[in-house]
Amino acid sequence: MSLSSLQTKLKAGAMSVVLAVASFSSLAAHPNLVITQSDVVKMRGALDSQGYFSERYHSLKAQVDKEIAFPIVVPVPKDGGGGYTHERHKKNYQLMYRAGIIYQLSQQQKYANYVRDMLLEYATLYPSLDVHPKRKVKSQNPGKLFWQSLNEAMWLVYTIQAYDLVHDALTDQQTNIIEQQLLRPVALFLSQGQPTTFNKVHNHGTWATAGVGMAGYVMNEPEWVEKALYDLDKSGKGGFLKQLDMLFSPQGYYNEGPYYQRFALLPFVTFAQAIAHNEPQRKIAEHRDGVLLKAIDTTIQLSYNGLFFPINDAIKSKGIDTIELVHGVTVAYSLTNDTGYLDIAKQQGQIILSGDGLKVAQALDKGLATPYTFKSVAFGDGSDGKEGALVIMRSQLDGDQALLFKPAAQGLGHGHFDKLTWQFYDKGEEIVSDYGAARFLNVEAKFGGRYLPENNSYAKQTVAHNTVVVDETSHFNGDVEVGNKNAPTLNFFETSKYGTVSSGEISTAYKGVELERTLALVNLKELNSTVALDLFSVVADKAHQLDLPLHYKGQLIDTNFKLKANTKQLSALGDKNGYQHLWLKAGSTPKQGLAKVSWLNDNGRFYTSTSLVNGDESFLFTQIGATDPNFNLRNEHGFIRRVSGTKQHQFISVLEPHGEYNPSKEYTLMAQSRVTNLKHSQQGEMVLVELEIAKKHYLIAINNATLASKKSFKYQHQSYSLNGRLGVYLMNNI
Amino acid sequence: MSLSSLQTKLKAGAMSVVLAVASFSSLAAHPNLVITQSDVVKMRGALDSQGYFSERYHSLKAQVDKEIAFPIVVPVPKDGGGGYTHERHKKNYQLMYRAGIIYQLSQQQKYANYVRDMLLEYATLYPSLDVHPKRKVKSQNPGKLFWQSLNEAMWLVYTIQAYDLVHDALTDQQTNIIEQQLLRPVALFLSQGQPTTFNKVHNHGTWATAGVGMAGYVMNEPEWVEKALYDLDKSGKGGFLKQLDMLFSPQGYYNEGPYYQRFALLPFVTFAQAIAHNEPQRKIAEHRDGVLLKAIDTTIQLSYNGLFFPINDAIKSKGIDTIELVHGVTVAYSLTNDTGYLDIAKQQGQIILSGDGLKVAQALDKGLATPYTFKSVAFGDGSDGKEGALVIMRSQLDGDQALLFKPAAQGLGHGHFDKLTWQFYDKGEEIVSDYGAARFLNVEAKFGGRYLPENNSYAKQTVAHNTVVVDETSHFNGDVEVGNKNAPTLNFFETSKYGTVSSGEISTAYKGVELERTLALVNLKELNSTVALDLFSVVADKAHQLDLPLHYKGQLIDTNFKLKANTKQLSALGDKNGYQHLWLKAGSTPKQGLAKVSWLNDNGRFYTSTSLVNGDESFLFTQIGATDPNFNLRNEHGFIRRVSGTKQHQFISVLEPHGEYNPSKEYTLMAQSRVTNLKHSQQGEMVLVELEIAKKHYLIAINNATLASKKSFKYQHQSYSLNGRLGVYLMNNI
Repeated sequence: MSLSSLQTKLKAGAMSVVLAVASFSSLAAHPNLVITQSDVVKMRGALDSQGYFSERYHSLKAQVDKEIAFPIVVPVPKDGGGGYTHERHKKNYQLMYRAGIIYQLSQQQKYANYVRDMLLEYATLYPSLDVHPKRKVKSQNPGKLFWQSLNEAMWLVYTIQAYDLVHDALTDQQTNIIEQQLLRPVALFLSQGQPTTFNKVHNHGTWATAGVGMAGYVMNEPEWVEKALYDLDKSGKGGFLKQLDMLFSPQGYYNEGPYYQRFALLPFVTFAQAIAHNEPQRKIAEHRDGVLLKAIDTTIQLSYNGLFFPINDAIKSKGIDTIELVHGVTVAYSLTNDTGYLDIAKQQGQIILSGDGLKVAQALDKGLATPYTFKSVAFGDGSDGKEGALVIMRSQLDGDQALLFKPAAQGLGHGHFDKLTWQFYDKGEEIVSDYGAARFLNVEAKFGGRYLPENNSYAKQTVAHNTVVVDETSHFNGDVEVGNKNAPTLNFFETSKYGTVSSGEISTAYKGVELERTLALVNLKELNSTVALDLFSVVADKAHQLDLPLHYKGQLIDTNFKLKANTKQLSALGDKNGYQHLWLKAGSTPKQGLAKVSWLNDNGRFYTSTSLVNGDESFLFTQIGATDPNFNLRNEHGFIRRVSGTKQHQFISVLEPHGEYNPSKEYTLMAQSRVTNLKHSQQGEMVLVELEIAKKHYLIAINNATLASKKSFKYQHQSYSLNGRLGVYLMNNI
Repeated sequence: MSLSSLQTKLKAGAMSVVLAVASFSSLAAHPNLVITQSDVVKMRGALDSQGYFSERYHSLKAQVDKEIAFPIVVPVPKDGGGGYTHERHKKNYQLMYRAGIIYQLSQQQKYANYVRDMLLEYATLYPSLDVHPKRKVKSQNPGKLFWQSLNEAMWLVYTIQAYDLVHDALTDQQTNIIEQQLLRPVALFLSQGQPTTFNKVHNHGTWATAGVGMAGYVMNEPEWVEKALYDLDKSGKGGFLKQLDMLFSPQGYYNEGPYYQRFALLPFVTFAQAIAHNEPQRKIAEHRDGVLLKAIDTTIQLSYNGLFFPINDAIKSKGIDTIELVHGVTVAYSLTNDTGYLDIAKQQGQIILSGDGLKVAQALDKGLATPYTFKSVAFGDGSDGKEGALVIMRSQLDGDQALLFKPAAQGLGHGHFDKLTWQFYDKGEEIVSDYGAARFLNVEAKFGGRYLPENNSYAKQTVAHNTVVVDETSHFNGDVEVGNKNAPTLNFFETSKYGTVSSGEISTAYKGVELERTLALVNLKELNSTVALDLFSVVADKAHQLDLPLHYKGQLIDTNFKLKANTKQLSALGDKNGYQHLWLKAGSTPKQGLAKVSWLNDNGRFYTSTSLVNGDESFLFTQIGATDPNFNLRNEHGFIRRVSGTKQHQFISVLEPHGEYNPSKEYTLMAQSRVTNLKHSQQGEMVLVELEIAKKHYLIAINNATLASKKSFKYQHQSYSLNGRLGVYLMNNI
């Protein structure tokens, strides 16, 4: 998408809604939040033509018809997340919102009546409520309808839109009851009633400000909008704009990672649309160089095979088809006309019934979608983009590979202690994996559906990731406050025809220990293959035990060194910091040379990690599942490379996808690693890796200098020149 | 399909090839095995019209073009299964076969030349070969090109067809060399050179007789055909017809199970077509009431979600798209014109370039496919259909459920000791699972790609299945000879609107112990739900320990009794008969009443097994993986219900699919079992189960009598009447 076309677009948009603004200062027209009166006219016009839009309309109408045939149920709040009353109230706000849309499109009174009656029931119930009986005493502000105020804010975001959609079908008496007994009290409860959450620069704050701000537009309370935008005291220290400034990096990366990024996206996108429609002069879409659009695009980039990269507290099945991102992509296409977004919209398979949704639907009808391009990119972290970065490397040379490298900031309370960790993906699957969050969302039997205790005791701990653990303690000693204050540094990132390389470091994860990692996704074009090179250097001021785990997905196939397996009895590997959850299945200390571990993934491909070892690295094979009395953990596999009593160590390895296992067609190809040699050396700041693979002899050079100017060097009597960070050279064939 | 239409079809087919027969006794026309001269004419006519057939032709031609651009490689045999020379010779015969077809269709000489040149290279190599260096000394006859003669027979099946296809493009001198130095020696090596395999009533024998018999047609050796059909001594004790008589049950069930059934299918189907084309008077398709067609259809029925039920030694990823079944379905459609087969052909997505394949392709082009119907059926086992049965129950009431019940015979050397075991499937996934075979096909590092030692030590053992183990020893004490002689009895099978019920028993699995199991897949239509009822009765002449394992797929969610988990250390559950491979993760003895175990499957649904216990059943939670120094086993989960020191026990339980876990859309529904009561009683031969579920009160009645006539009975002062085996009644609501 071109930024200039975006800006033209934004200006045009700004002009066309001048009329709507005027009405904010006098009497608001309805609807005028995400959906405007003029949208409604266009949408009604599209209902009779065949296509994605009318299809979605008719299917939603049929759904709503089915639902509103049942009696309205507005239960007295009782249950926590996942429980009956919780789910019922969630369902109610969605239903009101949908019925409101169907009312506007069908112009049939019964839908408005349904929303009206439900609102009136809520208006009767709400004044009688105290805070929720299942509230969490310490960690979160409570709601009244819901155990946590976050859900109450979500309720308001949907309900205020539903009310806006049916407003003109109500009598003055009805609007009066609904506003006085329900909507105003909820808005006040969520704003002045809980200043810490409302003013907080955090996604919970965004939901609250979005709900309250939109209520301000609908109920003609400009003060509420001001407070929503600038903090309760209008200082600008909190509020929606501060959230936009602080929660995203300049590239639109959200500090907590993609799982929460997509979650946070909806109130941002929703409220921003409402602002644009009511007060275009605020130029909200242009705010901070269009950061909101960047945030939407970044959310897409942070996915692989439709699922978000599961860094930090993330439930792994969340992906681009999540409703929040459907809204986001809808707005992104409307703002930019970039047909790549239609590709994503097609994969999402959901059409939003809004003005922007109509645009998407009509473009899809015309077959305008073009492939969305996933790129190799380093997303700067932190509000200034300088607190490290989240790095994504991609290659389509052989398969569909993605390498995630995380010299990123802690990411607040949902962050994991996983500085410099990595993940690897190929052919649609996780290969080197991250546990994600330990949680069964809304499953009552699993700790009430909340984050499990094992989320803290295992999933967040360093050993649950693919990065160095010093002396069996987690980064920052597991202290999230310290973590939030100390981000890694991104040393460099470069992508070229040779592949992608990046380096990051951190000296604050452990006192007196420097951790520096360079990862490269290297294209070996003569072999039509890709390998991932991993160079992890640890330098400490005194001797430590260093562990580098690799959590792999698949079945162990082979090691080129003999394993001593624990076949009769298993013990936990340690007693704290996550180690208490690992069974030790086998161990070995391979002799000097190449140590290979091969596994077979469900995608039918083999993967071999070849490590260059000096005879001092032990390999410990683990399985998750110890100290797990309630069977809360998934029993996944890994191996830990361990060196003890050392001040300095380099973990050097290459990960190689190879071959194919196809029992259905009864063939197996190249089940053995093709790597026959791996050497590592350094010439000043030039890192040189010799790699012999499949009878080809490669030299891989990485320029580690602070500034990478063009550089010449000699290796084995041959001259080479490197312009940039990464060079891949075919040496004399062997 | 109607059998009469099949028979008309068969007769018509018989008449149209009379010409071809005559030539057998004089000089054979070419080609005339699976593909005939008249097929070729029709196929050539279809190449220029758009459609499945020409598409497949062009894609295969492109593939062949790519392959024949490389030099011909016919290496000296050296490697075992999965190794280079093994795979190369496999590739070669497939390539010759394909190039032969492309020659016939394109009429371009270069394809014939390629086959010719490769055959001549083989003709040079073959006379120099001794038996294969990697032969297995004891267990199988060796080949010369391959380590086992089975592969050599497969080579001949393809190669003789390739030769037949290019025959008319060769000079007399060339045919002479190829026949004298290669094809005749191979045919003789596979027949008189290995009488035990050739005469064996076993799928290895089928490949050999098919290859040799077709060679007889092509090289005008009627004697070879006679020997292939009736044993080397033409006694009829062995040979292809005996194999057709003995290896399939009257319903077309193959004794070893579907994994080997589909494998065995190809030589049966291939040779049968060659016989029909050359000697229609043998009426091979009508043999044994059309058993071959039944065998094809049964193979399809023995699949779920595209994959074969993995009983016995089965690799789980094998399914209906396997090339053997593509050939089978092609022939089945051609014989019957049953458009349900087109549904399967569509799912297979592969078109055979043959006369029958053309018929399938043209029917698919016309959109004639209709849904194939999967049925609830008991497939009688054994050549007389009386050695027990393999029972499949299906329901589409809520999801897509299949229940497999196995009161079937041992199934020769690949059979498992799993009498009366069951498996359960829902929404595309395994829920109650079978390990299948322990094998990584052709993966050299995993025991040379052969069956792993753990196939014997674990996968075949009784405890690896979902059936009763007495005193921690396997059925028949693990002796396959004894197993082959002692099949269970199928007591009854019935399918009706109430669901499907079946009962089987065996008294020879353990000395002095009667095992009797009744399984029912019950429709609860008021709840739009299905449950599986399991009644397993054990009666012994002295006290034993009885274990009933249930291997579940998914994550344990909850138990309604407290578990005592082994959190710091795990030990193997036993030291032999498969128990040495199970870690004991937790145990408990629930008190009298209902004992529930709930798990969550990857399909997003919850499953709860509710057992009716007396306080005497212990529950042992296990994970596979002990005594596994080479990481050969998958680490799957199960629980074992155990009673000790008892002469008599009834294991009573109900399996209930429920709810939905949808973290992507952030909702969880009905995560808890709805079963609130389960009672079991007996009135004479009437088994009565009361089931309270979701506030409905059901009575399930099963008539266990030898003959089930209409029966009336009273239960809790109400009168009921049952006409058949299974009745489901709604009692007064609770």
